[in-house]
Amino acid sequence: MTKNDRAPVLAALRGWLGAAGLDGLIVPRTDAHQSEVTAPRDDCLHYLSGFTGSAGLALVLEDNALLFVDGRYQVQVRQEVDPALFEVRHLHDDPLDRWLKTHARPGWRIGIDSMLVAGSLYDRLAAGCSAAGAELVPLDTDPFDAVWRERPARPLGAIRAMPPEVAGETVLQKRARIAEGLRERGADLLVETLPDNIAWLLNVRGSDVPMNPVPHSFLLLGSDNRVEWFVDRRKLGNDLDAYELDDVTLLPPDRFLDRLAATAVERTALVDADFAPQAVRAAILAAGGRLAAQTSPITLAKAAKTPAELRGYRDCHLEDGIAVTDFLAWLAAEVPARRGRAAALTELEAEERLLAFRKERTGFIEPSFRTISAAGANAAMCHYAARPETNAAIDTAAPYLVDSGGQYLNGTTDLTRTLMIGAPSPRMRKAYTAVLKGFVSLMSVRFPSGTQGHQLDAFARRALWEVGLDYDHGTGHGVGHNLLVHEYPHRFDRKPNLHGLVPGNIMTVEPGYYEEGAFGMRIENQVEVVADGAGFCRFSSLTLAPIDLAMADLDALSPEEAAFLDHYHARVRASLMERVRPQTKAFLLSQTRLVAEQRTDRRPA
Amino acid sequence: MTKNDRAPVLAALRGWLGAAGLDGLIVPRTDAHQSEVTAPRDDCLHYLSGFTGSAGLALVLEDNALLFVDGRYQVQVRQEVDPALFEVRHLHDDPLDRWLKTHARPGWRIGIDSMLVAGSLYDRLAAGCSAAGAELVPLDTDPFDAVWRERPARPLGAIRAMPPEVAGETVLQKRARIAEGLRERGADLLVETLPDNIAWLLNVRGSDVPMNPVPHSFLLLGSDNRVEWFVDRRKLGNDLDAYELDDVTLLPPDRFLDRLAATAVERTALVDADFAPQAVRAAILAAGGRLAAQTSPITLAKAAKTPAELRGYRDCHLEDGIAVTDFLAWLAAEVPARRGRAAALTELEAEERLLAFRKERTGFIEPSFRTISAAGANAAMCHYAARPETNAAIDTAAPYLVDSGGQYLNGTTDLTRTLMIGAPSPRMRKAYTAVLKGFVSLMSVRFPSGTQGHQLDAFARRALWEVGLDYDHGTGHGVGHNLLVHEYPHRFDRKPNLHGLVPGNIMTVEPGYYEEGAFGMRIENQVEVVADGAGFCRFSSLTLAPIDLAMADLDALSPEEAAFLDHYHARVRASLMERVRPQTKAFLLSQTRLVAEQRTDRRPA
Repeated sequence: MTKNDRAPVLAALRGWLGAAGLDGLIVPRTDAHQSEVTAPRDDCLHYLSGFTGSAGLALVLEDNALLFVDGRYQVQVRQEVDPALFEVRHLHDDPLDRWLKTHARPGWRIGIDSMLVAGSLYDRLAAGCSAAGAELVPLDTDPFDAVWRERPARPLGAIRAMPPEVAGETVLQKRARIAEGLRERGADLLVETLPDNIAWLLNVRGSDVPMNPVPHSFLLLGSDNRVEWFVDRRKLGNDLDAYELDDVTLLPPDRFLDRLAATAVERTALVDADFAPQAVRAAILAAGGRLAAQTSPITLAKAAKTPAELRGYRDCHLEDGIAVTDFLAWLAAEVPARRGRAAALTELEAEERLLAFRKERTGFIEPSFRTISAAGANAAMCHYAARPETNAAIDTAAPYLVDSGGQYLNGTTDLTRTLMIGAPSPRMRKAYTAVLKGFVSLMSVRFPSGTQGHQLDAFARRALWEVGLDYDHGTGHGVGHNLLVHEYPHRFDRKPNLHGLVPGNIMTVEPGYYEEGAFGMRIENQVEVVADGAGFCRFSSLTLAPIDLAMADLDALSPEEAAFLDHYHARVRASLMERVRPQTKAFLLSQTRLVAEQRTDRRPA
Repeated sequence: MTKNDRAPVLAALRGWLGAAGLDGLIVPRTDAHQSEVTAPRDDCLHYLSGFTGSAGLALVLEDNALLFVDGRYQVQVRQEVDPALFEVRHLHDDPLDRWLKTHARPGWRIGIDSMLVAGSLYDRLAAGCSAAGAELVPLDTDPFDAVWRERPARPLGAIRAMPPEVAGETVLQKRARIAEGLRERGADLLVETLPDNIAWLLNVRGSDVPMNPVPHSFLLLGSDNRVEWFVDRRKLGNDLDAYELDDVTLLPPDRFLDRLAATAVERTALVDADFAPQAVRAAILAAGGRLAAQTSPITLAKAAKTPAELRGYRDCHLEDGIAVTDFLAWLAAEVPARRGRAAALTELEAEERLLAFRKERTGFIEPSFRTISAAGANAAMCHYAARPETNAAIDTAAPYLVDSGGQYLNGTTDLTRTLMIGAPSPRMRKAYTAVLKGFVSLMSVRFPSGTQGHQLDAFARRALWEVGLDYDHGTGHGVGHNLLVHEYPHRFDRKPNLHGLVPGNIMTVEPGYYEEGAFGMRIENQVEVVADGAGFCRFSSLTLAPIDLAMADLDALSPEEAAFLDHYHARVRASLMERVRPQTKAFLLSQTRLVAEQRTDRRPA
């Protein structure tokens, strides 16, 4: 589809609006599960506008249409979307609720599919409308069913069981634990719409979308431990005994809201208002139920990994480290080898090669997110994904950044390395040294159990601040166990995050620096939170891959920083040396030399 | 009054409750201005219970009474309050709203004086009642007027003008600026109940209570720049021209709610729900006005000090540094001189002597808070105030902590020093070294303009965490300009604080460590936020007083930490040497020696 194809879609939607007695329609980017990766049939915003980014929101009115996208996508949206059809605005700086407040006309009725909008966003949009004398109308039908010709069907990805010995806990144990939590909170019912929470509870993994191995479904769990699972039966194999489904009632997804209404009568339902659709809240209240808006107890339980899950993370990170180190060694040899040849190594070729290395590893399923394989100025875009038309050559003029991860049967990986094959500029050296120091600072902090992400975030930034630099993204996120690579609720960020870190949590640590139009760099390890004396914790690296020091000013490292890197590299070397390809060993040895050795080697004789 | 005197008060209050048709009464510790220091007539909680702490809440029922106090006061409350009359509970761990939820009986009517409870607390208490089927009844009368015999009168402390050249801005300039802010926010009216905000706006200072030089009053500012000031006329001098009161309508305080109701009709009133009384919100809504719950624009404007105010802070800190350094020198000589004598130096004598030194300084008015003069185990209580029955000897066995400050005509000071006259134990040395490193770390950080307190707090804790220690209080707070020593809204804390720091803000930096029953230590400087390159800030010390290094392990200091201390001490020495008493000079020279010198001096020959 090209830019020019969207006019008929808009026209059809406007026709539908008129017939429905509405003045406008808000089209979210998300599906009913607030997924980061959506199925093709749920990409209504793309169908409508051509925009392919992972966050956004449109407002279609009779005479015009607005598209709200965030800072990451301001360039991309102009390549993908026809400005004659859509006026582009900033999702956060100039949000839709504020626009409504000042631009909506009294009496306007603006529709929104109440299954696609989370309760908390719904409240903001409704307040925006009402401040202008307009009305937000929650729709219980999907307008795109009417206007989207040849709309893809709902995905029917197969659901597999995760063995309880890999999960570390049986479904019955998990259900009993969560049901008890409901009783403690005075709730009768938990309403789950988050697919990773459901996958965790039922020890299953899905394949409805790539990279996020979760099945689209809904679930009700009573404080009496009864479970109703709203899932398309066709996704499950013929042998239901392969799953832990004792005492689970299977129902089709389209029964979800009716059953919720029937169950919620005069009962207290626990709902996470930041994720559950507005339709869920409305169904509960209409049935005379009470709402308890809280973080789901599954979200909290899932974040504290079991010993078996932690073993899985460690095992799959060893496999992943072998693949990544083989790849880095190959890359470090390939770039200079191709010098002067017509076919320079490109981002897409490197991405493909990395995937090939991962495919050789035990337990590997698929990437855990779209690989960021970025050379030169492309690496300055934090969420870059190489495409044929942007596919740059990896050369010696600028660092190469690769942010990637794998889904394994026993865990999920996510790491970033930045390599400089040629000679770095002084500016690159200054920035990389600060990123490295920030990385080491946060990686090596000891902290009281229960410390929150916003308290620790700045340790990763201080060295950058010192030289007048910073980065405009969070410093780390939770990672699921063969689940979502961005797992809620823990984050390292400047923004407050009230979920304290305790042993068994899994996080990434990923400071970076980006110079628009020039270069980008990031260093990222995945870590587990481990106990370190009574009441204290530290991070232990799961990621096993050498950190390139070619760009760093080694004289600027303190003895403690050098000792951290030496200790980490000794572990990487000991873990990987016998497992990598023969042609990787020299690279691994060289990359993991002591800081003092690298310092000496670099000095002119 | 002894413990046994409270039974008649309780009986009288219960009689009043019965006559008023109420089942209970909530008695807050605060006054209508949410003051930290209250006037005697506002100490209803003390009159009722005997409790003298600065935070608390009682619930009086027919058959029993509950007193909620926080962790700081769990020991003190048992000394002051009769357990036969009051059941003591924890203000935060077991708060009143939760108690109401589980213990209030259906149909109960619980009263609360709606001028004494901030809107946000009112909402929590009302929710607690309603969850139990009970009702929170906002009272528009003060029950203590009926039951408190010989209740003190409202204070009539004189109000003086602060010259605009000291404030740096005329009242008319401030009013125009704030009124414009109201218009920008779409508000018609600002309701001010915070005395320091009113004092700032009108360039006045008051004397209703000690140490907090603010007049009790209320104020309405329209977006049209009109001001109504509800203040007892007797507090103002006969010559109104001494004040900047052009176009200010003076009204008695008891007209406040009526005028508010009259003014708010069909208008939008900006109210800070965390501070303004519930009565204010109720009056606005009853009059058909709209509420905009936001931080007061005065709170935000006041935190960004003018160049004149900043000069005042610097000048009064020089005066204060002279007094404090003379005091520390005197103390360091006096403790050993009294050894073996019957009359050891005590906390109260030291406090008195410090005040005498301050009284000699230009512009000094009074202490800015009750001095914490604490020896030995008393210093482990963060909010200790010496009393005759606790007045400990300052000796060589444990460190002496002095946290004090002054109100000056041109600013407010607040600093803490901890001195070890004798030989510290290894445990004291370890802890003090970590406190010192944390202090230096936060003092020396460079950060982007707009960084929030919760992002920086942990820099002051990391060295303590490293050795398994921490402290259970915030790391710093804003300080008013001859106003409140604890000035809202900025804080360094683990808890989120969304108010970004920009040049011109004034803060304290005060990490500490407390070992119950043994010792306590804290190092505190007051700082101003200054620009440091485009978009970045750092802290510049206002406090000028040597930091005792006798307890520190100097070998554990990094070169950067030693350089920071050397640089600071050089500035302290240069600023104070010609101004301190002759007998202070040797002490000042010794205390401000280079770290390397102190290290060498300490080594056995």
